[in-house]
Amino acid sequence: MTLVAVEDVRDAALAALVGAGATATNADLQADLLIEAELRGVPSHGLLRLERIINRIHNGVADPVATGIHTWRSDAFLAVDGQWGLGPVVAKTALDAISEKARQTGVAVAAVSNSNHIGMLAWYAEAIAEGGQILIAITTSEALVHPWGGRVALVGTNPIAIGVPTATGPFVIDLATSMVSMGEIHDRAHRGQAIPEGWALDAEGNSTIDPNAAKSGALAPFGQAKGYALGLAFELLVASITGAALGRNVVGTLDATNICNKGDVFIVIDGGTGQAAAISQYLDIIRATPPAEGFAQVLVPGERAAAQRRDRLKTGLPLADDVWVAVRTLRDAAQSGMEA
Amino acid sequence: MTLVAVEDVRDAALAALVGAGATATNADLQADLLIEAELRGVPSHGLLRLERIINRIHNGVADPVATGIHTWRSDAFLAVDGQWGLGPVVAKTALDAISEKARQTGVAVAAVSNSNHIGMLAWYAEAIAEGGQILIAITTSEALVHPWGGRVALVGTNPIAIGVPTATGPFVIDLATSMVSMGEIHDRAHRGQAIPEGWALDAEGNSTIDPNAAKSGALAPFGQAKGYALGLAFELLVASITGAALGRNVVGTLDATNICNKGDVFIVIDGGTGQAAAISQYLDIIRATPPAEGFAQVLVPGERAAAQRRDRLKTGLPLADDVWVAVRTLRDAAQSGMEA
Repeated sequence: MTLVAVEDVRDAALAALVGAGATATNADLQADLLIEAELRGVPSHGLLRLERIINRIHNGVADPVATGIHTWRSDAFLAVDGQWGLGPVVAKTALDAISEKARQTGVAVAAVSNSNHIGMLAWYAEAIAEGGQILIAITTSEALVHPWGGRVALVGTNPIAIGVPTATGPFVIDLATSMVSMGEIHDRAHRGQAIPEGWALDAEGNSTIDPNAAKSGALAPFGQAKGYALGLAFELLVASITGAALGRNVVGTLDATNICNKGDVFIVIDGGTGQAAAISQYLDIIRATPPAEGFAQVLVPGERAAAQRRDRLKTGLPLADDVWVAVRTLRDAAQSGMEA
Repeated sequence: MTLVAVEDVRDAALAALVGAGATATNADLQADLLIEAELRGVPSHGLLRLERIINRIHNGVADPVATGIHTWRSDAFLAVDGQWGLGPVVAKTALDAISEKARQTGVAVAAVSNSNHIGMLAWYAEAIAEGGQILIAITTSEALVHPWGGRVALVGTNPIAIGVPTATGPFVIDLATSMVSMGEIHDRAHRGQAIPEGWALDAEGNSTIDPNAAKSGALAPFGQAKGYALGLAFELLVASITGAALGRNVVGTLDATNICNKGDVFIVIDGGTGQAAAISQYLDIIRATPPAEGFAQVLVPGERAAAQRRDRLKTGLPLADDVWVAVRTLRDAAQSGMEA
């Protein structure tokens, strides 16, 4: 683990992305998304992903210049052909368009196809809630989750994020519909730790506490039948309006070679009723409620991440050694490439 | 338990509602919602609720004639003042309006306030998906759920429903963000059965397996921290755009005397991409996947309810004796009232 100043990480990531052909604006968006994930303690969506992103550009399955083609299918429905652009570039461009539209129409939706992995959804929800609007963001992904009562991975980890404005800043949730992330399984395997019963199945569909066996198996949905229902509904909803692939046909967010065929849906609602102060008061009541045995306090979602962000802006990002080596290697390759 | 033909139940419920002052149309909607819940095996949202609805009309906190005042706050944002009308009447009237609007705008939202309990959300999701559109429905309710890590109920059971069209009919999920419903707790208490560890806390905030102790305590959120985050996000989202009350200030869906101050949000998306057949194929793959130990088969959400509905249309509704007595008493009172 190395503690690296945020600006050093940003400079290296920007150099690597610009070296791979990204415009300055696009490199900024992609680098910021990865860094914000590290700041919030979500390394699975952080700099770890940079090498794959650069490789996808080199392999021709990510276009570092594209921002997406926008077609207003109707007044408040934006269809986005992502032109295989970088995920956060395509998503942010789409969000800017529907956020502006929603100021007139009250609600607007973006259905994004042909885009790459859009990373940590909280990043988008926070930006929209910061602007006084509500965001619901849903995206699909490779089938890593078994249906409740099943043995085989057939459903994506299909996360949802919701951002709501309050008087004291954005309230944001961002959660996958799997019990844990596959990143967490890999991390346990790396550290030689068992995983709790109920997290995952092995390749034969049997419950396992061995993270190495779980890697080739399936993650459990969170919350049993209910989490399965939600994850499946998100898969169908997104496919229905973006034309995304379904189930085991989804590829391209975990590899460097396949054209990515998942979809992203954003819904922006503009219609506050002056409730921001009442919402903040309610959240204060939750913060002050007595904790149950084994809990130090009751948390409002997103606040642990926000505290971590404040700390890490000062202390720097605790990057895994191999990740920081990889980022610098990508930067150096880009810089020698430009000199050549 | 009495098995009663659906049309006998409908006639009795209609007579009771019309006797209490409902128009024929409004009585139809309210009765149909309750009967459809019974057909799908959700008695907590069924005829059990009729007496309270009638009492709320008598007590002046539900208006059996009102359908809601519609104000288009912007092109695709409908603000609905429910005028304290019957929940399904106000909700269905709002849904009809935004469903039609979404055919032009691609998406439309309804923010409903001053309405009564809207019952089983699947009813709405199925209707919209039947018409080829997607529905996301979220409603709030009395604080019965403790925050994850807390001891006291501070969050509503805040359910979500999603309906998506497929080639073989609507796909619908409808789930509360609590582990179980308070109705299930009451049912266990009635039958003298313990509840599983982890379902609920007692009034002191300690874990309990005694359903009678749980009645005055708090339900667990489903899926631990993630389900808590979702339920809380729904509470804030709905309050933000409807002006609904929050947390323990919410009243009027479980009693016969308080003006109801929760809110309902409906989002209709119109923008299919011809994926209905692919979605149905994908659901077939899920149905055919091998089940895990202890499961007979892998279910697609909503299908057990749909099968039950088909059966019960033939066999009749298995109503609890006291519920069927209460419905007939309400009918008889209404009929003698009309003769008087």
